[in-house]
Amino acid sequence: MAGSSLAHLTPVSNSLREKLRCALPARSFPELSGKYLSEPRGRFTAGNVLVVAPKTANEVSKVLRLCGEVGTAVVPFGGGTGLVGGQIAAELPDPVLLSTERMKEIRLVSTSDNALVAEAGCTLLAVQDAARSAERIFPLSTAAQGSCQIGGSLATNAGGVHVIRYGNARSLCLGLEAVLPDGSIWNGLRPLRKNNAGYDLRDLLVGSEGTLGVITAACLKLHPRPRDETTCLLAVPDPTAALDLLELFQNRFGNLISAFELIQKNGYHFVRETVPGVKTPFNTPPDWSVLVDIGAEFELGLAQRLEVAAGEALDRGYASDGVIAASETQRQSLWQFRELIPEANRRIGSVSSHDISVPPSAIPDLIAKADQLLARFGEFRINCFGHVGDGNIHYNVFPPRGAAAAEFENLRAPIRRAIHGLAEELGGSFSAEHGIGRLKLRDLQEFGDSALLDSMRRVKKALDPLWIMNPGAVLPRETG
Amino acid sequence: MAGSSLAHLTPVSNSLREKLRCALPARSFPELSGKYLSEPRGRFTAGNVLVVAPKTANEVSKVLRLCGEVGTAVVPFGGGTGLVGGQIAAELPDPVLLSTERMKEIRLVSTSDNALVAEAGCTLLAVQDAARSAERIFPLSTAAQGSCQIGGSLATNAGGVHVIRYGNARSLCLGLEAVLPDGSIWNGLRPLRKNNAGYDLRDLLVGSEGTLGVITAACLKLHPRPRDETTCLLAVPDPTAALDLLELFQNRFGNLISAFELIQKNGYHFVRETVPGVKTPFNTPPDWSVLVDIGAEFELGLAQRLEVAAGEALDRGYASDGVIAASETQRQSLWQFRELIPEANRRIGSVSSHDISVPPSAIPDLIAKADQLLARFGEFRINCFGHVGDGNIHYNVFPPRGAAAAEFENLRAPIRRAIHGLAEELGGSFSAEHGIGRLKLRDLQEFGDSALLDSMRRVKKALDPLWIMNPGAVLPRETG
Repeated sequence: MAGSSLAHLTPVSNSLREKLRCALPARSFPELSGKYLSEPRGRFTAGNVLVVAPKTANEVSKVLRLCGEVGTAVVPFGGGTGLVGGQIAAELPDPVLLSTERMKEIRLVSTSDNALVAEAGCTLLAVQDAARSAERIFPLSTAAQGSCQIGGSLATNAGGVHVIRYGNARSLCLGLEAVLPDGSIWNGLRPLRKNNAGYDLRDLLVGSEGTLGVITAACLKLHPRPRDETTCLLAVPDPTAALDLLELFQNRFGNLISAFELIQKNGYHFVRETVPGVKTPFNTPPDWSVLVDIGAEFELGLAQRLEVAAGEALDRGYASDGVIAASETQRQSLWQFRELIPEANRRIGSVSSHDISVPPSAIPDLIAKADQLLARFGEFRINCFGHVGDGNIHYNVFPPRGAAAAEFENLRAPIRRAIHGLAEELGGSFSAEHGIGRLKLRDLQEFGDSALLDSMRRVKKALDPLWIMNPGAVLPRETG
Repeated sequence: MAGSSLAHLTPVSNSLREKLRCALPARSFPELSGKYLSEPRGRFTAGNVLVVAPKTANEVSKVLRLCGEVGTAVVPFGGGTGLVGGQIAAELPDPVLLSTERMKEIRLVSTSDNALVAEAGCTLLAVQDAARSAERIFPLSTAAQGSCQIGGSLATNAGGVHVIRYGNARSLCLGLEAVLPDGSIWNGLRPLRKNNAGYDLRDLLVGSEGTLGVITAACLKLHPRPRDETTCLLAVPDPTAALDLLELFQNRFGNLISAFELIQKNGYHFVRETVPGVKTPFNTPPDWSVLVDIGAEFELGLAQRLEVAAGEALDRGYASDGVIAASETQRQSLWQFRELIPEANRRIGSVSSHDISVPPSAIPDLIAKADQLLARFGEFRINCFGHVGDGNIHYNVFPPRGAAAAEFENLRAPIRRAIHGLAEELGGSFSAEHGIGRLKLRDLQEFGDSALLDSMRRVKKALDPLWIMNPGAVLPRETG
């Protein structure tokens, strides 16, 4: 691997500042504040940046052209909720931080075409709400949905709890409006289900984390709203039983399963520890449990069917105890508990968090072997949770009770290496749904297929020859 | 638009022939036959080619490297069923035709991961069969499935009748093994549902029609097998009623609708005319009808539910008559009729065939306006059929009774232009599911977004700087 460098970049100059101020209205320059400089886990911080918040693709184009002229880096910034530092201009010499916060319009909601056009700065929640107002759903759902922006969700190909049924951000996107590094604007917003007119630029931009251009708007796929929904939380003996349960439920409910989430005992403990007054399900937290959502677009008597299927699961030993939500309120309270887990994790403070995936059948092996690996580093608390149906596990490592994460700073890198190596060994990925950003740039170099890496470099150089788009993220620039 | 040229290519020389024979076993060189030189609609024919049929990605790599050394073109060839000439080495100076016919292994079927790994040369039918043997389905389904190969289906991002529920070839692909133009091999076959480790090379290769590399194997997504399936054919007053019917059925059956096919009266006539002894549904063919498939992975009493929904459709005037299949045999016979339509079209011989898409709500407008446009060119028979739920219509134009397509040769180009222009005007695509190939290369230049075209050229040059992969397809090479 050749060395990487950011030496080609020019810090924002007074002259560039001036040109930008001439090109864009005054309200395009929000005040610099801490939110632009740090991220949720505090792993990356930026120094100085010039925040520019264009309102349209045309304005984005102006910014990119002006920055391109002088070789100043541009870091796209959405809701700032990314967990791999892709949005943080760390180590960059005074770049432009291009915030999509002012592109907030929902341009179109079409029930007849089951499509919605949202500008990049709409929060995921705003998109969900717009869909719901039209008796549809936009099923992408993540912990950060209240603050993350759809442009960022697409740029990072976000996943979340409904991928098992509806796919990830990529599969919910019909088309994009985007500004390419040279400032040209791609108008690709048509709500078409079939369109084979040219290479798939959409999917190249989705997941490229702002290194190949700026997504300014997206045409998104809507789905019919489920009218019959049911939820259960079942205690399962171990991860293998969770897989057996999944198979059983798939036989009973097919593609109607919209979430199938594994929760480990520490999920309960951490929530109880950090959220005063909260009540978690079960008096004694089970070692493992599974939260399942099932939904149909028509009346199907799902609650009774689930009753039967859960009984079968108990008979077969796939589950040992459980709660079936008897009301919408109970459904919501089960999900509120699930959604508190990432927040509780943050409050406890992890030594290292791992967003990894394996072929779903390898999940039990992954968890068992990761526990063994971890034991070599010392005694930790593990909170392992995630999306069983997608093979995506968040294997998160916490300090023992009474200790702080900071005491284990020196172990963070070796632990991460070990866990990522294990995912790789099991035919999985060290990056399931959070992306590469700045956190996993080296992992990609280490674990990435060499032909893939070479193609990525070629594509990057072809579309961004000046290497100004989010430099330092995803791919290192080679110097000699 | 700059001129395009194939002058950079070197015809297969004796020396290259010799090197290839040294590098590959003798059985890698099938005899040249007509099937390699022409395509189903007879629009394109090739002159001389050297057919090479490697067995492995390694052998494909050798072929690409040797051809790259001397600048000889390589045209990937699957089942030869493509309808836009992408597989036909027309106008190329003696290229290598790289046939995937010997890469026929199903490497893996995993029920626990709902995934299957097939080599490029497996027919689509062989993939479907392998899935079915494992109590799963691979839902991609096209008229050519008995002879088309999965590598080609992916390279062209094939669509077909089940896209409404399961998506196109792209959305059924988890990963690829592919050889890039420089001969490097990408091993990307992992059965992962979530993998954000790098740019989406998979979706860049899918739909690139052999111009960016050769797909040698694919990891494909399996779905649970529907256990309760029902089918109906309903006569509808017009295309608007077809859309109303779709909405009604989506409210009743949600995502369980796995096909929703529009059939025009001439579909019936053409089948009766060209398939002796066949019985078509309905005594008097309706002007418009819709064939609907609904399936659930569990017992749901779908037949009775469909009875009720169809009654509702009759009451509301969305349908005027209909057949609900009472048995599996009747289901199959309805589908056999549908599947005879493309074959009947071929036998009648079209003046021009159009694989176009629009936002689904624009279908009635598309059909009405296309009829008006056509009337200006003369009197024709139209057989317009397709995938209403996907907005994908095959608007096919046939000579009047008693005349032959050849008499209208001079109208083909202007008719195509007019219909493609109309699709464009309605916010649609001149290429829905068949690709660009050689047939629509100029259309892409004319209708394609300029930023998209520029990005495509950059990506093509970056991955295939020698421009040897399927030259003449998709993108013209610019010569200053």
